[in-house]
Parts: sequence; C-alpha cells; structure tokens
Amino acid sequence: MNERLIYLPLGGAGEIGMNAYVYGYGPEGKERLIVVDLGVTFPDMDGTPGVDLIFADLEWLEDNADRIEAIFITHAHEDHIGALPHVWGKLRKPVYARAFTGRIGQLKLEEAGIPPETITIVEPRPQTISCGPFTVQFVPVSHSIPESSALVIDTPAGRVVHTGDFKLDGNPIVGEPFDPKLWHEIAKEGEGVKVLVSDSTNVFSPQPGRSEATLAEPLAELIASQKGMVVATTFASNVARLKTLAEAGKAAGRSVCLLGRAMKRMVSTAEETGVLTGMPGTIPAEEAVEVPRQNLMLIVTGSQGERRAASAQLARGKYLGLQMKEGDTFLFSSKTIPGNERGVIRIMNSFSEMGVDVVDDHGGLYHVSGHANRPDLEAVHDLLRPKILIPMHGEHRHLREHAKIGAGKGIASEVATNGTMIDLTGDVPKVVEYIEAGRTYLDGSVQIGAMDGVVRDRIRMALNGLVLVTVILDEEDQALGEPWVELMGLPKVGRSGAPLAEQIEDEMTEFLDRAPVKILSNDDKIDEALRRIARQVSMEEIGKKPEVIVVTSRLME
Amino acid sequence: MNERLIYLPLGGAGEIGMNAYVYGYGPEGKERLIVVDLGVTFPDMDGTPGVDLIFADLEWLEDNADRIEAIFITHAHEDHIGALPHVWGKLRKPVYARAFTGRIGQLKLEEAGIPPETITIVEPRPQTISCGPFTVQFVPVSHSIPESSALVIDTPAGRVVHTGDFKLDGNPIVGEPFDPKLWHEIAKEGEGVKVLVSDSTNVFSPQPGRSEATLAEPLAELIASQKGMVVATTFASNVARLKTLAEAGKAAGRSVCLLGRAMKRMVSTAEETGVLTGMPGTIPAEEAVEVPRQNLMLIVTGSQGERRAASAQLARGKYLGLQMKEGDTFLFSSKTIPGNERGVIRIMNSFSEMGVDVVDDHGGLYHVSGHANRPDLEAVHDLLRPKILIPMHGEHRHLREHAKIGAGKGIASEVATNGTMIDLTGDVPKVVEYIEAGRTYLDGSVQIGAMDGVVRDRIRMALNGLVLVTVILDEEDQALGEPWVELMGLPKVGRSGAPLAEQIEDEMTEFLDRAPVKILSNDDKIDEALRRIARQVSMEEIGKKPEVIVVTSRLME
Repeated sequence: MNERLIYLPLGGAGEIGMNAYVYGYGPEGKERLIVVDLGVTFPDMDGTPGVDLIFADLEWLEDNADRIEAIFITHAHEDHIGALPHVWGKLRKPVYARAFTGRIGQLKLEEAGIPPETITIVEPRPQTISCGPFTVQFVPVSHSIPESSALVIDTPAGRVVHTGDFKLDGNPIVGEPFDPKLWHEIAKEGEGVKVLVSDSTNVFSPQPGRSEATLAEPLAELIASQKGMVVATTFASNVARLKTLAEAGKAAGRSVCLLGRAMKRMVSTAEETGVLTGMPGTIPAEEAVEVPRQNLMLIVTGSQGERRAASAQLARGKYLGLQMKEGDTFLFSSKTIPGNERGVIRIMNSFSEMGVDVVDDHGGLYHVSGHANRPDLEAVHDLLRPKILIPMHGEHRHLREHAKIGAGKGIASEVATNGTMIDLTGDVPKVVEYIEAGRTYLDGSVQIGAMDGVVRDRIRMALNGLVLVTVILDEEDQALGEPWVELMGLPKVGRSGAPLAEQIEDEMTEFLDRAPVKILSNDDKIDEALRRIARQVSMEEIGKKPEVIVVTSRLME
Repeated sequence: MNERLIYLPLGGAGEIGMNAYVYGYGPEGKERLIVVDLGVTFPDMDGTPGVDLIFADLEWLEDNADRIEAIFITHAHEDHIGALPHVWGKLRKPVYARAFTGRIGQLKLEEAGIPPETITIVEPRPQTISCGPFTVQFVPVSHSIPESSALVIDTPAGRVVHTGDFKLDGNPIVGEPFDPKLWHEIAKEGEGVKVLVSDSTNVFSPQPGRSEATLAEPLAELIASQKGMVVATTFASNVARLKTLAEAGKAAGRSVCLLGRAMKRMVSTAEETGVLTGMPGTIPAEEAVEVPRQNLMLIVTGSQGERRAASAQLARGKYLGLQMKEGDTFLFSSKTIPGNERGVIRIMNSFSEMGVDVVDDHGGLYHVSGHANRPDLEAVHDLLRPKILIPMHGEHRHLREHAKIGAGKGIASEVATNGTMIDLTGDVPKVVEYIEAGRTYLDGSVQIGAMDGVVRDRIRMALNGLVLVTVILDEEDQALGEPWVELMGLPKVGRSGAPLAEQIEDEMTEFLDRAPVKILSNDDKIDEALRRIARQVSMEEIGKKPEVIVVTSRLME
C-alpha cells in the first residue's frame, strides 16, 4: 500500500481562532499523526450565549488517538493553546513547546489537574524532535507574543513548513527577529520546501507590515506629553508592547503599575524563562494609589472591552483603589477585533463621561499587527519557493485570497477549510476526504456539541420568551382546577389590557373543559393543543410566538 | 415670570441613533414645546434580544403633551423618523416635513392605521411654519438621503439652528447641495445665530468629507471591468448612490435590477416627489433571471448584513430565482456600522465559498459618509458664528470632542446628553434639570420599558439556561409523587454521568420527604428551598447556576 502525507485542519481554517491542525504520514487510514496547536475561540451573545469557551470538535482525533504521536504548540496565544487543558485528557499524548509557551501551557495544565511534565520543553532548531515518520523543528518567527515558532516538519514525502502566526519583524523588541537567512537555509536544505502551510490573517492588508520597534518613539512622545494619569491597554500577551509602554512611562518620570492577572502572568513567565529582560520595575496597586497622578502610569488588561478586565473595571469606577479622573488619558495600544466594537465603544464613552481623554491606535501610530501583510506573505512565498501552498488561519475569504496569490505565482494552492483532508504526496494538493468538523462548547464544566440543541434553546428563549404551563389531570383524565401559566421574558400585559397569563389560562380552561377523552388521555395531544393555544393567544395579545413548555401531571391512585 | 428658551434631548445625545429633541419657550415649566425627529435605534442580541425596535422613552413628552405645538422631521432616515408611527398616537400633534420625507412618513403612518394627512408637507425656506412662540424654516442640507434639512428655529430669545444630519456636499447627485451663501444669509439676518445644535457623528474624522460625486468614476470603472454578474449593496435610502450605481451598470451594458422592498420604496417615493429624476430604467427579478450574467447588475438591500435582506438571502443561495456564482462580484458600496461586523463578515465568507469576489469600500473609493467631518463642522461654526454650541447626534465621546472644538474657538459649548434640560436664554448654556430619559422597546406589538425586567429575564435565560420544577402537594401538605424537573438550554448530563434532571429530582424528593410542615405549608419557602437545590445540584454537575422556576400546585378538596 502506498504511503501518503496528509493535512487536516480541524479548526482555524475558515475562521480566525480555534487553531487545530493535523498532519499524517503512512498508509491510507493508518497514517501516524501529529497535532499542531489546540486553540480556543470566544463565544458571543449572538450565537453562543452562556458558553465559556469554544474549541474544535476533536471526535475524529479521539477516534484515532492510537495513531497520534505528539502535540506541538507553536505559541502561547489562546487561539493556539487555550484548548489544551480541556482536551488533553481525551488524547493523552506528549506535548512539545518552547520554554515560554511551554511554561504558560504548564500553568494551564496544573490548574486543570494535569501534570505539567506532560509538556516537554524543547529548544529551537537545530534541535529536532522525532515522532514516528516525522522530524520536527521549532523555528523562531516574530509575532505579537514572545517565542512564536514555525514548525519545519520533515516527512518521507518531503518538507512541510507550518508558519504558525508570524510577521516579518527584524526588531520585535522581545523575542527573536524574523531571520531571512535562517529561512533561506531551510529552503535550500535537501529538496527544499514541498508544502508551505501559511498564516493568512492579514492577506487583505496591502502595505508591508511595520516593526514593533516603530512604536517606541510615538508612544514615548504621547505619554511624556500627558498631564494626568496615563492608563494604557494592550493584549496581555504582547510582552514587547508592555515593555515599550513601561519604558515610555519610566522615561516620562512615571511609576508603572500592571493591572490584570493575565498580564502579570505573561510578564513573570517571560522573565522567568529568560525571554524578557530589562523590563522596568513596576509597583503594585497598593503603592500606586499613593503616587501623584501625573507621576503614574497603569498598564491594564481589557483592550477588547472585556467586561471583567481591568479597563472595564476602571470604566465603571474605582478599581483596587485606583480611579480615573478628568484630565487623565486612556490609551488603546491595540486594535479592536471585529465583533468586539460594542464593548470597546462602551468603555470609551464611560471614560468620556469621566472627562478622560481616550486615544486609540491612531491608524497604526500606537499599534502594529502581529501578522504578515500581503507583501510579507509574498516575500515568504518567494523565500521558501514551496511546490504547494495551503493557506491557514483565516476565514474563507482570507484563505481564498491567499490561495489566489499563490496560484498567481504558479504555486499549486488549495483552499482547505476545517474538515478537509488533503493529500500532499504528489505535486498538487488533492482533497481526499471530508471529516465532520464541528465545534465543542465548554459550558460551565461540561463540554457540549455545538449541534446538541442546548444553545439553540437558549437563543430561542432569549428571542421569543417563554410560557410555562402546568396542568394537573385526575384519574378520570379531567383537569383538576385550572391550568397554571407563568411567563418568563414576556410582557405581562398586551393588547387587551388584561394579564397575558390569565388570558392564556382562560383559553386553556375552556379548551380542557370541552376536550374529548381521547385528547385528555394523551399527554402528547394535550401538550400540542396547549402549546398552540399559548402561542395563538400570545400572538394576538403581544404579537410574539413564545417558546412553550407544558408539564402535564396525572394523579393516580 | 421670566420666559426662557430650553433644549432637551430625549434621544440621540449620548448615542448615535434614536434621535428625539425638544425645544421649549415660555415661562418655566410652562414652555410651549416643539419636537424635532422621532427616530429608532436597532436592537442587538447582546442587550436587547427579541426586541424589534428601540426608541426614546417619551413619558415626559406624554405628560406634557398639552404643551406640544408640533413635531418636525428633518429627514427620512429610520433614526429620525422610525418611531413616528409607534408613538404618534400618544402625542397626536401636527407633523411637518418636506415632500420626500413626508411621503415616506405618510406611508409609515398608513401602515400603522394613522391618517397620512397627519403629516403636513411643507416647502423649504423661505416658507415659515409658525407654532406658538416658534417660527420654523426647513433649510436644505446635503446628506446621504434626499432632502435632508436643517431647521432654523426663531424664538423671542433668538435664533436656533438645528443642523439635523448633514455634510458639506456641493454636488450630492440627488437632492440639494449644501449652499454656503444661503447659510451666510441665515447667519447675517437679525441678530444672527444664537445657538447651533449640531450633528457630531464624524467629529473624529480629521479629513474634510468628500462629495458623493467623487464615486461616479471609480464605481463606473469597477463595474465595467467585471466579467460575471455584479451585485452591489448600499443603504436603501441612499438614493444618490443607487442612481450612481445604476448609471455605472447601464454604462457597462448591464440591465439593472433592484432587490429589496425598502430600496424600491425609496426610489419610487423619490421619483414620485420629484427629488429623483433621470434614474436609469430597471427590470424586475422575473426578467433579470433571463439576462446573461455578464449583462446583469443587481442593486440589493442588506449592506449591514441584515439576515432577512436581499444580500443575506443571496449569500444563503437562490433568491427570487437569482443566484451568485463563481466569477461574480459583490460590492459593498457602504461602510459597516460598528456592531454589525459579524453579520457582514458572515456574508462575505458565504460569497467567498461560492467563488464570488467581494469588494468593500476600499477605504472610501466606493463609499463616502453622509456626515460632516471635523473640518466641515468647524467650517459651519465659522460660517454661522453662534454664541452657543450644543453638540448632538453622537455618543458621549463625540459630543465631548465637538464641545471641546467649540470651546477652543470661544463658543460657549455644553455636552448635553439625553434627559439634560438646558436653558439657552442667556449668553451661556445652563443645565437646569435632569429628566428621566430612558428607552422604550417595541417587542412584538407591545411597547415595554427598558427597565421592566422582561429583556433582563431573556438575557438571564440565554446565559444561564432554565430549570423548571413542578411539585404537587396534597391536602396535608405532603408531596404527591416526586417533583418533576424539565431543563431548557442546559446540558442533559453532567459530571456524574447521570441525567441532571433526575439528579435534581432525587435531591428534591429527599428534601420534601424530610421537610417540616412549616416549610411545606408555605409556597415561598418551598420555592426558595427547591430553587436552592436546583442551583446547587446544577453547579456541582454542570458548573452553572441556572434560572429556576418552581410551580407548586396544591390539591384542595
């Protein structure tokens, strides 16, 4: 039987977030597998109310767990590592990551009661990790978190470069720069790069990306020119930005205080693992309250308007004794991720009401992206000269645009969304199978399938409100008393001016009084009839058809 | 008693949308009133699930209805006219608007069963409308809908200019240009402008706004260069854009078809009232299906990703026999309003999956805003030289920024959010009262208050799920059978692997078996105890504390 090299995205291809990719090599259906990244995506009220986290449905991986050699984590962003503590128990395979990423992962595993030694900390290239038919190297790339890595995956069918998230930054402040020489070497070794599986997030950004280093001067100028307290927010994991902000604060004669658990953990882990050095000293909140506001700078979590983060707490009032006031400045050294606009705008307006000046990224003056823009992606195509390009980490439109660019250069390119298994053995990628690729919701402490109907019912209750009916029938199938109706999420009174619940009860009583035994003796028929009455009366009274639950109780001697 | 001039925003000041402003003149508490605009804002799943429309709480106006002289509508955008059919019945005052706006309003009133003659169609300046102490003129301004008007409101205390929504466009394609000479005249008459109440939407846009006319060439080039079917979307009310798009389609040898009820109504009303002339002929959908795709252009509703609009229908598949295919182009000649990103992106990706090329506004190449940018606002300050500036139509941050600009020029400026009554009689604006200014939800056919708790309950059910408990007690306060538990929006099975509903039932049965009569005879105590059990068991099993409804029925002989 012929051996083959396969690629199967389970998350991250057809969306931004929730990364989970599988590579396999071996005879068809018996390929040995490695998993790259196990990330989460975040719920929203529109589609996933009440849900805590979302990650890829790993049923296929679980079914084939005996074929998995190992799990590799490219970097410590939640959309690459966040699912690990929640799904590792189902896979139970060795995990490899570099020091900073691995340490963040170990902290997460510990919290979930999983031994941290599960993650093996590895060095970057030239170290190699051998897993069945695969030989894997971590290769440093620049991104918006320290120590982001691409993977060079050597297989008997050729070399795969999986970029992870990256940008071309020669001076990323913290962590390694993107090193074209190193990548040139990788492209030249052996038979070169067979397949490039590449980040597509910023494919629609037409200008070359800018270095993290370009922010230092504008940020220093901005902060030096403020008169009141300065509060800056950025992504907690952007350790380089935290350093730049802290240095700018220090240079402006300000004591710097970090607020927010995620941010403190990132900084301490970065220092502990040696990726961050020279971070200006910071003071705790207890000390910060004593510092005159013109000498104080806070760096806080919550750049996306998250309700529980420090920025939102400050927008609501006092937080850990600290409070923003007229003449203070709040800086978003970040961009708003699509979908988070409302939360961010809410905070901006709360600050405005306090008389606080809000400064946004000013079109890139105070923030740069961590992803490669279109010209940068093309530069990587040209540097690596792969035979095949598989765009990943993008919505469908990003993948499609990226594949078009590849095809335009004569690289065999294929859009492969979650669940699409691609055979990479030949000269062109070939779709060989579609796997059911869904989403799993972490809901409280339970993992539920996206299609289980639980969340659908929540959405229905939220949109339509709920009528709850209880009716008791005696031994002769006669209603005992009147049915009882409770409303939840519905107006109490409608068109007629009489209480809606009573109107529904009256109609139901009338129905039960004259309904024949063949209906009254059948729970399903009663359910159906009462449901119809509840919806009909509601429609007339309040113009809505609510969800209805009917509970029929029967007395038996 | 001294007479005074007051301004009271009830909606639109502290938000973008839901405009509703009140002016009054007379002795304190007895001022005669006029209302300017009665608009809506749109619900979202985050804060207002299931709600149909949102408008200002008009309780204060209703309480003072006998003091209202008239209602003026500046233009036909939903956030200025949308509430009229829903609230007119509570105010029952004459409504004034110009022809196009008035006709749109009349259609809305008719649908609500209100006589269309309620709206009096008026001509622009020099016509004046006298209402009690007010003399009002409609003055044409340019905007993204035909016939937008500012109001010049003359009072014994001086002249107020209420800009409505506007931009400075010398060539708006449809409708009147902004005419600086006319405004110069208005500024010079009598004692000049005492108060400028001005649109603030685009105060954060630093460049001068661009004319609608700048789009004609880029749009024509874009459409001429497409090979498949072209589908363009924009705001249904942007009649000028519709004309430009249709002309570009025509010039490219394409038959043009309008899809979407709102869009057709806007075009036909614009033609009927004479504001739109020279619109290229269009064909109905039934004919469009017969036209070769390279010769066809659709102009469709749904630029904000609205689920029921034509764009979303096409994104889901066939719509009125028309279907997009590989090689077709979909153009957003619009910008995405913050909060609508997810819906728009969903559509973009659906088209991408079909192989359709999606073109966005390209940073303004294919769309211009209808609002005055910062330099334009400043130009109006300079043109009108008001003594007082009251920014309106903006979130708090917009109002504050706009007021800062005014103050910087020595104009007495005041941020007045919804419910803030300002005395404009003197040289500087003076806050004199805070009115309770809330929101009213149209929910189905019922109007409910935002604070009624109805929507709060829906959100809670959506976030937490629902446990429904029914228990029957006999004449001696003993439970008859076991309590019955139903779940809605909750996982069926949790930690223990046993059904959650049964786990809750078992705990409840145990409780009821040993509970003393003083609890069992008291519905409130039973309710409280069973509720606690449901939440506690759920927390242990599924890590969530659900909403709980307990229905206790008692048998009585």
